[in-house]
Amino acid sequence: MGRMLLQEAANYAIETYILESDPDCPSARLCHHFIQGDIRNYEDVLAFGQNLDVLTIEIEAVNIEALEVLEASGKTVVPKPAVLKIIKNKILQKEHYRNHQIPSPAFKTTYSIAELKGESDFLPAVHKIAEGGYDGRGVQILKHPSDFEKGFDTASVLEKMVDVQTEIAVMVAIDLNGKLVLYPAVEMIFDPYLNLLDYQLCPVNLPEKTRWKAEAIAVKVAKSFESPGLFAVEMLVDREGGVWVNETAPRVHNSGHHTIEAHITSQYDMLWRIMLGYPLGSADSISASSLVNLIGDKDHSGNVKYEGISEILATENVYIHLYGKAQTKPGRKMGHITILGRDRIELIMKAKLVKEKVKVISQP
Amino acid sequence: MGRMLLQEAANYAIETYILESDPDCPSARLCHHFIQGDIRNYEDVLAFGQNLDVLTIEIEAVNIEALEVLEASGKTVVPKPAVLKIIKNKILQKEHYRNHQIPSPAFKTTYSIAELKGESDFLPAVHKIAEGGYDGRGVQILKHPSDFEKGFDTASVLEKMVDVQTEIAVMVAIDLNGKLVLYPAVEMIFDPYLNLLDYQLCPVNLPEKTRWKAEAIAVKVAKSFESPGLFAVEMLVDREGGVWVNETAPRVHNSGHHTIEAHITSQYDMLWRIMLGYPLGSADSISASSLVNLIGDKDHSGNVKYEGISEILATENVYIHLYGKAQTKPGRKMGHITILGRDRIELIMKAKLVKEKVKVISQP
Repeated sequence: MGRMLLQEAANYAIETYILESDPDCPSARLCHHFIQGDIRNYEDVLAFGQNLDVLTIEIEAVNIEALEVLEASGKTVVPKPAVLKIIKNKILQKEHYRNHQIPSPAFKTTYSIAELKGESDFLPAVHKIAEGGYDGRGVQILKHPSDFEKGFDTASVLEKMVDVQTEIAVMVAIDLNGKLVLYPAVEMIFDPYLNLLDYQLCPVNLPEKTRWKAEAIAVKVAKSFESPGLFAVEMLVDREGGVWVNETAPRVHNSGHHTIEAHITSQYDMLWRIMLGYPLGSADSISASSLVNLIGDKDHSGNVKYEGISEILATENVYIHLYGKAQTKPGRKMGHITILGRDRIELIMKAKLVKEKVKVISQP
Repeated sequence: MGRMLLQEAANYAIETYILESDPDCPSARLCHHFIQGDIRNYEDVLAFGQNLDVLTIEIEAVNIEALEVLEASGKTVVPKPAVLKIIKNKILQKEHYRNHQIPSPAFKTTYSIAELKGESDFLPAVHKIAEGGYDGRGVQILKHPSDFEKGFDTASVLEKMVDVQTEIAVMVAIDLNGKLVLYPAVEMIFDPYLNLLDYQLCPVNLPEKTRWKAEAIAVKVAKSFESPGLFAVEMLVDREGGVWVNETAPRVHNSGHHTIEAHITSQYDMLWRIMLGYPLGSADSISASSLVNLIGDKDHSGNVKYEGISEILATENVYIHLYGKAQTKPGRKMGHITILGRDRIELIMKAKLVKEKVKVISQP
């Protein structure tokens, strides 16, 4: 995500700084100044931000205390560190939704498996670790009491299972003055095994009323954080048309990759406009789109090799983004492919073709 | 141009190297390896290319001998150095068109002003220095014998003046196997004082027959060089509908900047596809577009300051590209702005607005 933000940064007259522990990370060679350091370390983040004007993040797992000090010293931090504090911890995030009357599945907090075992009446439910989950890790589906052993023996959220019809996301952009635009909703089709996005479609196939409801909720969520930034609001639509907030990412997000080609203003450009104090761009779509994540093959670890790229590039309206990660491992996000098309059938067909042809494996 | 090529490079799993004398150049911080050196120096270019797989250029004024040695040693050089040799020298370029029966204005070669003075019968004409001209420099319009003193006292081309109705350019892409696609023609409106592009429009406002003729000529030109690459063929359309090749740039070109947002495959992505041996992308347009170059104000030199950016970013369908050059000077290309729109009127109006609002000046 940092890499794509830097690709867009080159359109503005700005100097860019990246803090990362891995000097071979995808962003290292696309910025003016690469600073090696741990984003979770107080001293590292503080030192990093000292001479900068504006800071942002691409992952919530950063040292928030340091960002708070930087913000207090007058730096613009997008989103505000207070938002990260809430979102980073799923218990706080769920309480935030409840306190703001934002529809989100009913939940309990648990701190041990022993405690979890007393919640048989609450099943089926989803157990989510409060901190540190990412990309499908830190989430367990608990259907029967026999599943309790799969739960987390630490601070977690136990969430009532929603009878999901569709998973969607709406991205909201809020500028430094509180002005707001929202991107059309996207629909996410998940891989049932990896719990990772299989492919994504825009626009969504939902009744207008449900879309409006989702948009209203997304706006409410984004506003509730009282911060400039991008807010990717992930929602669950149930079989009765009910819309429930699953979680929010206060940053550029996987569900917005397609905006690079398919929308007037990409999420990356939008974030720069916010950070630089420029007017927001239009979030309207130029074309319907689908998006496929390129995920490390489950049987491969090591130096990455991409198969099928040439074949896919021969397909019209297909855009490839490889993230420049040297090493692949099972389930790792290594790139994505955006497809523009006229209708849903074409978009799904091409997404399936991409998934069939493109393989992220390791070199022998 | 290198900068935009690098922005696009980040979508592929490749390692990038840049050779440039200025370590603060726009490309320096967007590549994996910046090598300081003189692109006109034989040793520098040879050493630079030694361990690379594929090389390209963003300006013709490079050391061609070194590129020839690299090519002979098995490197892929796009375009072939032999093409650069022809194009770099306007006399050779004109002879090339003549030898290939490509329509281009009648010409004579001159080597001194004394010699030039014997060509009164050839006026009105355009005098172009054979080597080293760039961005409007090295070109003089000679209408009367009294203008001869403005000519060049060195190897030059004296070209019959065409009664120009419209200046256009057609970009042709040829892959390593000789497959070819062409971008729709663009129309260029020049600033009569600076001899620099004022704004550019796509599509062109020309009869279908004239467009076809121009496309056929552009294909003929591109093929005549017998090399993979991008070929921006600049042509003059006279008042009788005649089409004349003005000159060709065998590389990414100013006349293709709009392809980033307005076409399915940008010229930058197209060149990567060529260099990496991938299939060519579609060159079709997504939207009509206009393009304005951001040029250093004639009264300003020094640390650059951009005025009016915020106002322009509030206009819908406007895309800004600043090249990250620290210093402005009169007539220097500092960035460009692409505008998407429904019709010619809207595109011209917005181009005029950009030119009125955005100023590239120096900091006080």
